[in-house]
Amino acid sequence: MNTDHFSFTADTTSSGVIQHDFTMGEVTGALWSPESGAEHAPLVLMGHGGGNHRKSPAMVGRAQLLVIQGGFHVAVIDAPGHGGRPRTAYDESEIAAMQQAMASGEPVGEIVVRYNAHLAERAVPEWRAALDALQKLPEIGADGPVGYYGLNMGTAIGVPLTAVEPRITAAVFGLHWPEALAEYARRITVPIEYALQWDDEYIPRASGLALFDAFASKEKSLHVNSGAHKELPRFEAESAVRFFARHLVREVPTPA
Amino acid sequence: MNTDHFSFTADTTSSGVIQHDFTMGEVTGALWSPESGAEHAPLVLMGHGGGNHRKSPAMVGRAQLLVIQGGFHVAVIDAPGHGGRPRTAYDESEIAAMQQAMASGEPVGEIVVRYNAHLAERAVPEWRAALDALQKLPEIGADGPVGYYGLNMGTAIGVPLTAVEPRITAAVFGLHWPEALAEYARRITVPIEYALQWDDEYIPRASGLALFDAFASKEKSLHVNSGAHKELPRFEAESAVRFFARHLVREVPTPA
Repeated sequence: MNTDHFSFTADTTSSGVIQHDFTMGEVTGALWSPESGAEHAPLVLMGHGGGNHRKSPAMVGRAQLLVIQGGFHVAVIDAPGHGGRPRTAYDESEIAAMQQAMASGEPVGEIVVRYNAHLAERAVPEWRAALDALQKLPEIGADGPVGYYGLNMGTAIGVPLTAVEPRITAAVFGLHWPEALAEYARRITVPIEYALQWDDEYIPRASGLALFDAFASKEKSLHVNSGAHKELPRFEAESAVRFFARHLVREVPTPA
Repeated sequence: MNTDHFSFTADTTSSGVIQHDFTMGEVTGALWSPESGAEHAPLVLMGHGGGNHRKSPAMVGRAQLLVIQGGFHVAVIDAPGHGGRPRTAYDESEIAAMQQAMASGEPVGEIVVRYNAHLAERAVPEWRAALDALQKLPEIGADGPVGYYGLNMGTAIGVPLTAVEPRITAAVFGLHWPEALAEYARRITVPIEYALQWDDEYIPRASGLALFDAFASKEKSLHVNSGAHKELPRFEAESAVRFFARHLVREVPTPA
């Protein structure tokens, strides 16, 4: 992927946060930055969930927290087939299979695992090229720490990405199955925080715990909360900001 | 227990925190309060670990965090046989059994569970009387919210206490076995946060998860961290402050 095609397409500023839209070839993305004082601040890459896109409410909300509370740059790219990006015939058939399983109350795990693994194969090289391009921006630079934050499909893409991308030095994941991801998790040694829902109607408890267990990271934390798959408490987003503050901001020791 | 015997024995003030020692009959305790602005602030009861006492470094450190960051009152009482309180012959024999098991590398779980359950029977009525007395102090009062925070033996005493004490409306526990506590946990419905260590050399993972699972609370969170029994990260103390801020301070909505 040629990062020379990287270009900003729109900018807005609100509450001290600058939001840039960007394109990189056919990939669409968004970058949030502090309005001031962000010279070579750490960069957090965020992966959105399935059926969502770079500027879904969860992405915008978490980006604003990370910029305002953490002083980070935050970048999201649309996954293949998401956020207006074209879908292949295979995308359409897998999405139809998921929708049919959910409508009929059948288990969707196997389809999600298989389709997300396919999307990860397409998304990982896009993420690496996007990171190349973002690190060429003067306000980011190639020397700052990089984190990754993604739940659901954002974990399905982020775990294989973090396994192969040495620039990512801390990551927050959650809400996925181990079948396609445990083999990548076993190659990840950077600090991680992992979230799972104790009453997840899609992901069995043992599956979530098995994926957390697979990470080879010496420092890892698991945050379990009561509630169904979609009921992850919003305070976990603030926990992620503090996690990145502990692991990406080396010059400011955390109080303890 | 007659709460008329409650009296303060020493006061010190440092960094905006007032520390009172108190006695209540044969029970020794400590109360930490904000130097100003604590009129009817929430009260957090803290239970210390086995072999420790009301002013061990963990208690003092957590009390200061809760007072400074949360604006709470914090009270600790010495468990029976701890902090200079007299030991019975049974105390001596159980402590000797634990020390012998640890010295010979044998499992200590069964002895800890049994002895801590015994201590809880003696400590629960002491805690309830201490709470009666503390709520008579003008700066605390009987109308403020009350939380409980205790790990290890502090959980062995706190879970039975919270099960029978309706004034406790939120609790942080961790690092114990389910055998004696699950039956009490099933009667607890207030929000809880529970901590366990993923590589605990004394408490099997399944045991820690089983105790967390037993709480009947609709809102409950589990924080797992990599590392051995004694390696609980210090940032979990700050998480406890935020937990009590969410659940005991009703008038200040948490940002999310």
